Amino acid sequence: MRYSLLAGGKRVRPILCIASCELVGGDESLAMPIACAIEMIHTASLIHDDFPCMDNDDLRRGKPTNHKVFGESTAVLAGDALLSLAFEYIACKANNVSPDRLVRVFAELSSAIGSKGLVAGQLVDIESEGKVVSLKELEFIHVHKTAKLLEACVVCGVIIGGGNDNNNNEKVRIYARFIGLLFQVVDDILDVTKSSMELGKTAGKDLVSNKATYPKVMGIDEAKNFAYHLMNQAVQQLACFDTAKAAPLYHLAYYIANRQN
Amino acid sequence: MRYSLLAGGKRVRPILCIASCELVGGDESLAMPIACAIEMIHTASLIHDDFPCMDNDDLRRGKPTNHKVFGESTAVLAGDALLSLAFEYIACKANNVSPDRLVRVFAELSSAIGSKGLVAGQLVDIESEGKVVSLKELEFIHVHKTAKLLEACVVCGVIIGGGNDNNNNEKVRIYARFIGLLFQVVDDILDVTKSSMELGKTAGKDLVSNKATYPKVMGIDEAKNFAYHLMNQAVQQLACFDTAKAAPLYHLAYYIANRQN
Repeated sequence: MRYSLLAGGKRVRPILCIASCELVGGDESLAMPIACAIEMIHTASLIHDDFPCMDNDDLRRGKPTNHKVFGESTAVLAGDALLSLAFEYIACKANNVSPDRLVRVFAELSSAIGSKGLVAGQLVDIESEGKVVSLKELEFIHVHKTAKLLEACVVCGVIIGGGNDNNNNEKVRIYARFIGLLFQVVDDILDVTKSSMELGKTAGKDLVSNKATYPKVMGIDEAKNFAYHLMNQAVQQLACFDTAKAAPLYHLAYYIANRQN
Repeated sequence: MRYSLLAGGKRVRPILCIASCELVGGDESLAMPIACAIEMIHTASLIHDDFPCMDNDDLRRGKPTNHKVFGESTAVLAGDALLSLAFEYIACKANNVSPDRLVRVFAELSSAIGSKGLVAGQLVDIESEGKVVSLKELEFIHVHKTAKLLEACVVCGVIIGGGNDNNNNEKVRIYARFIGLLFQVVDDILDVTKSSMELGKTAGKDLVSNKATYPKVMGIDEAKNFAYHLMNQAVQQLACFDTAKAAPLYHLAYYIANRQN
């Protein structure tokens, strides 16, 4: 659990949660336990996704994958235990957040990673290997596999921060959806343009496994244009907020669009 | 998810939760969403435990195991999604329970199945295969693999039911610990005395895989005596409660001690 959780990574999800909390006037300390829990949930999903029967990955965050180091049975259990620990952590560590907000956080997170969220995306992703995939199917995969959890990070941040302007809350939610899709489009582009050493995970894997990707479906240049479009759509949602408070989310959008690993 | 969750089973855990809720004066309807979620959690753990890299089981609840029918990748995801659904179900369906009680329920359940609970037991269990195991190590395995979740069922029932007599709550907790150990001792006895058809899961597996069991460590007759002793210890804890309200928990202890599958 420690090996994979503390292996580094970009920490995009916890940052999203904390920045969203601050955007609506909440303090960082309120969001911190939830932000940590979200990183545990994300790490749990990576451990299981890397399995031989799933994406069969040997490299993650610049290190051998969990099952490569500890064996498959320990890796199954490490993923399960990290998922449990995430929920335990929220229930036990977020003492300064009211219980009704915590219950809403539990609902958002569990729904984002379940059979209508992350698991749905991963299942369709695996089943699509070697098949011709339409743009619509590709979007289904990424909305579920990546964007739903990113959206939940933002929504949880807003809940914890006490955001009660529904119009503004909806704008942050839409921002998160664009960010989620943007994140995946850039991931696909990096897979074909960068080396394994630059990425910290196996490069060119999508091509080898004949997986559906944006560069494959729409070409690399069009995929780059699409990423630029998504970034602009995302930051447009922030126009109505205080510039200083929205700054972290602005920069996060630029960072995700221009990241090199 | 439906295949494994609705395959039957004894439903001991949800019954424990509901009976404990009623014991302290709560209504069955209060505990029902949590009872259902607990069965989802238990089923998720069974799906993962049956994997080839874990206990490698082909038969569960009288049917082929999840990965045998749907393949390993779907089975990994079905387990993950059932775990998520359990938490989502509590957060969304237990509207008539106060949020502060629900947060305590989340804490109990997630702690019971994580690295200090079920996962710890399963890990030591797998690592003990083929080795000489002491009675102390065997107890560690079963307390963590089985008893902790059973105890959490009872504790959650008491929380939901509004039990606020700490002395009585402690008694129900001790009852659950004895029941948990009893459950596993009987499981071990049945594994060597019953057929696969009678059990609905592969019989004689513990012997084949050279696993630590009570009959192996203390002999079959002594294991039966131990089971009888545990049952008596369990029901003794119920003496201070209203007889009618405690009746389901009495009968559950007898049922677990005398079950044939």
